[in-house]
Amino acid sequence: MKNKIITISREFGSGGRTIGKQLAKKLDIPYYDADIIQLTARESGMAEPFIRTQEEALAHANTLINSFSARDQYGMGIQDHLWRIQRKVIFDLANKSNCIIIGRCADYLLFHLHHCLRVFIHADFEERMERILKVYGETSESPKKRLLDKDFRRKAYYEFYTEQKWGDAKNYDIMLNSGTLGLNGCTNILASVWADDWQDGK
Amino acid sequence: MKNKIITISREFGSGGRTIGKQLAKKLDIPYYDADIIQLTARESGMAEPFIRTQEEALAHANTLINSFSARDQYGMGIQDHLWRIQRKVIFDLANKSNCIIIGRCADYLLFHLHHCLRVFIHADFEERMERILKVYGETSESPKKRLLDKDFRRKAYYEFYTEQKWGDAKNYDIMLNSGTLGLNGCTNILASVWADDWQDGK
Repeated sequence: MKNKIITISREFGSGGRTIGKQLAKKLDIPYYDADIIQLTARESGMAEPFIRTQEEALAHANTLINSFSARDQYGMGIQDHLWRIQRKVIFDLANKSNCIIIGRCADYLLFHLHHCLRVFIHADFEERMERILKVYGETSESPKKRLLDKDFRRKAYYEFYTEQKWGDAKNYDIMLNSGTLGLNGCTNILASVWADDWQDGK
Repeated sequence: MKNKIITISREFGSGGRTIGKQLAKKLDIPYYDADIIQLTARESGMAEPFIRTQEEALAHANTLINSFSARDQYGMGIQDHLWRIQRKVIFDLANKSNCIIIGRCADYLLFHLHHCLRVFIHADFEERMERILKVYGETSESPKKRLLDKDFRRKAYYEFYTEQKWGDAKNYDIMLNSGTLGLNGCTNILASVWADDWQDGK
């Protein structure tokens, strides 16, 4: 039997990570987020902080320069190598047991291989600004700039590797507005979808 | 206490109407769809078939011509009059009791006035093609053309009157892929959101 996997993509500040954690606890299944970086570090031999800076770095202003520089003889850059290793890490985790995976294009990678529920969490800009101030505190950058920047990176990373549009309904099974539904509300909805097994359409 | 309203926008062939009907039965609340045309006919004194042809007609190839022709001394065309009457009909229905309303920009109209859950139902193109053949049968037009045409009209109508993007996550609380979740699956999810009252985020 295929493992049941929930992948959660999310806008920055929408609470997608918190929903994932709450849900994992409720369903008593593993939850993978930063662990994927640790595992990628172990597989690749590269240091975690280095991987962290490389993650989503595609969206830097120098994307185009980056695309053509620092490539090996097969045309692969460091980010492509990391992508391949991380992809293997995600495949391995999904093969191990039912689980929840946050971000990292897991929806795209796992949809055809597993019994996969592709979730997207979003919220209004104002609510997300409020939330990142509450959760991450103030920094020298305005909350608006932080939000726009982070969303831009996630979007660029996702679209580069999947050739799908980030946040477009057609790439997800369920999209929830955490601003209107609440974090607990979203967790409850996903728990009920899990219990119902989201299968009767197939 | 504000009435609880579920508005369902949907891609053509996604089964949004069926989900609405099933949900209304399950929750034992009224469901409004074609009834809105009847009520608009009664309010306006215009005939139902005429209203039907006017509905979503904005999207015709001659949108631009239409925008500037057949306007009264206040710059209003027949569709604008119908829009205003239909808006009143929708406000009246929402004021009467908890209910489900299909289409007709009800999400946009009611969001700030009521305790309103804005739902969008969608599905992959292939699944929708299959479904319209099953439900509506073959016509001289290809299923692909019928789908594209109907979606285009709904989108144009919605965007003309709401100035919001049809099918864009930020305008909805919950978006469900009926192709992967199934019609019954979607109905169950919405029933559980209703029971949970989608409030804790507010």
